[in-house]
Amino acid sequence: MEELDKLREKNILAAKKKIAESVNEDDFIIHTINNIEELAKVTNVLTKRLRGWYAIYLPEFSRKVSDNEAFVNLILEKDRKALMQEMKINISMGMDLSKRDLKPIMDLASQIKSLYDLRDELKSYLEIVMSNYCKNMFSITGALLGAKLLKEAGSLKKLSRMTSSIVQLLGAENALFRHLKTGALPPKHGVIIQHPLVSSAKKSLRGKHARVLADKISIAVKTDYFKGEFIGDKLKKDIETKLR
Amino acid sequence: MEELDKLREKNILAAKKKIAESVNEDDFIIHTINNIEELAKVTNVLTKRLRGWYAIYLPEFSRKVSDNEAFVNLILEKDRKALMQEMKINISMGMDLSKRDLKPIMDLASQIKSLYDLRDELKSYLEIVMSNYCKNMFSITGALLGAKLLKEAGSLKKLSRMTSSIVQLLGAENALFRHLKTGALPPKHGVIIQHPLVSSAKKSLRGKHARVLADKISIAVKTDYFKGEFIGDKLKKDIETKLR
Repeated sequence: MEELDKLREKNILAAKKKIAESVNEDDFIIHTINNIEELAKVTNVLTKRLRGWYAIYLPEFSRKVSDNEAFVNLILEKDRKALMQEMKINISMGMDLSKRDLKPIMDLASQIKSLYDLRDELKSYLEIVMSNYCKNMFSITGALLGAKLLKEAGSLKKLSRMTSSIVQLLGAENALFRHLKTGALPPKHGVIIQHPLVSSAKKSLRGKHARVLADKISIAVKTDYFKGEFIGDKLKKDIETKLR
Repeated sequence: MEELDKLREKNILAAKKKIAESVNEDDFIIHTINNIEELAKVTNVLTKRLRGWYAIYLPEFSRKVSDNEAFVNLILEKDRKALMQEMKINISMGMDLSKRDLKPIMDLASQIKSLYDLRDELKSYLEIVMSNYCKNMFSITGALLGAKLLKEAGSLKKLSRMTSSIVQLLGAENALFRHLKTGALPPKHGVIIQHPLVSSAKKSLRGKHARVLADKISIAVKTDYFKGEFIGDKLKKDIETKLR
């Protein structure tokens, strides 16, 4: 009986270990890219509030700087007087706030800045993980787009088993099913649109560029999954040649 | 001509000043309560991510602590070993992460903690502003509920002009219009439900409690708006007597 108990314990231990070992880079990458996307939404909501609140103090400034991150950094770096001088206004329509009323506004701004910093840190982390885990795909897609493809597929293994035409459309599932169901025009690209070679191409060429790119990404991913050599440079050259 | 220019300039200046002076405590209070509500949503989203991510490391722990804030504080205070000892488990199903992979998780946790800290700071700020600006309402409702009523109304002025039956239903506009349109049961309370005297009452008594409370809040707000004396204690006693 005691023997049996021991065996049982051993089995549970072995199972726990197996579970612990089943975690891999896929999970880190997917959590990281999801968190980066969440942080983008979160900073957007909070900066919108900050803009409205800060406008009590210096309404002229919010309109001048449309980029959220630049806005946050500027109001943290320069005080009201300096900003007014830069904008060449003598009298603002804003109210000169007391320290008590200004503090929550500036604290919110610092918080948003730290969230941007966290996002930058996550991006660097993603680059490190991906350049180790799937160096070939990484060299073509960069960290963000590569992680998005991996997230859409679910794992590197699943991504490596997809045909290049599926890779091309990953993230455009809704448009694809709309096409199949209603006969609407089929989508030409999914998240791959975020690659500069696709996004900066003429609209009529985007489909072609997406196809060529997906082709090479698909090869890169298979090589990565089966731990092949680094062929990223060669693949990038191929893409260039094809799109010339 | 020069005279005219000067006059024009003077007028613009005067207008700018008037605009600057038109800002008042209402704006501070409304921005603050909105931001507190946004921070609640934001920390929720981020803690959900943190729980999933941390579960790679120590899955047994996430299930044990259901409160988000407590979860964040605990994983920041205690390391994996200490948490496992507390839960009396020898071997976790989680993976012992390298420093590199643990860092983004812990940094996310610190960020969430700072957001909770900001929320606490905003709450204290709200208490200071409201205890000056509308001390009578504040003494009955506290900072959060009072600010929500003020936000729903738009300003202290508008709130002071509302009848107590409107105050009772502030924030329940949807239910009210559904009642008027479809004949569904009318709502008995709006945001006022958040007052402990209403929320902790028996369901059958909540309507009555909300009405009595709204009555006194309405008197308090009018007194605040017309800069009357402090009658908060008296009003609170009245409420107690009526609900005994």
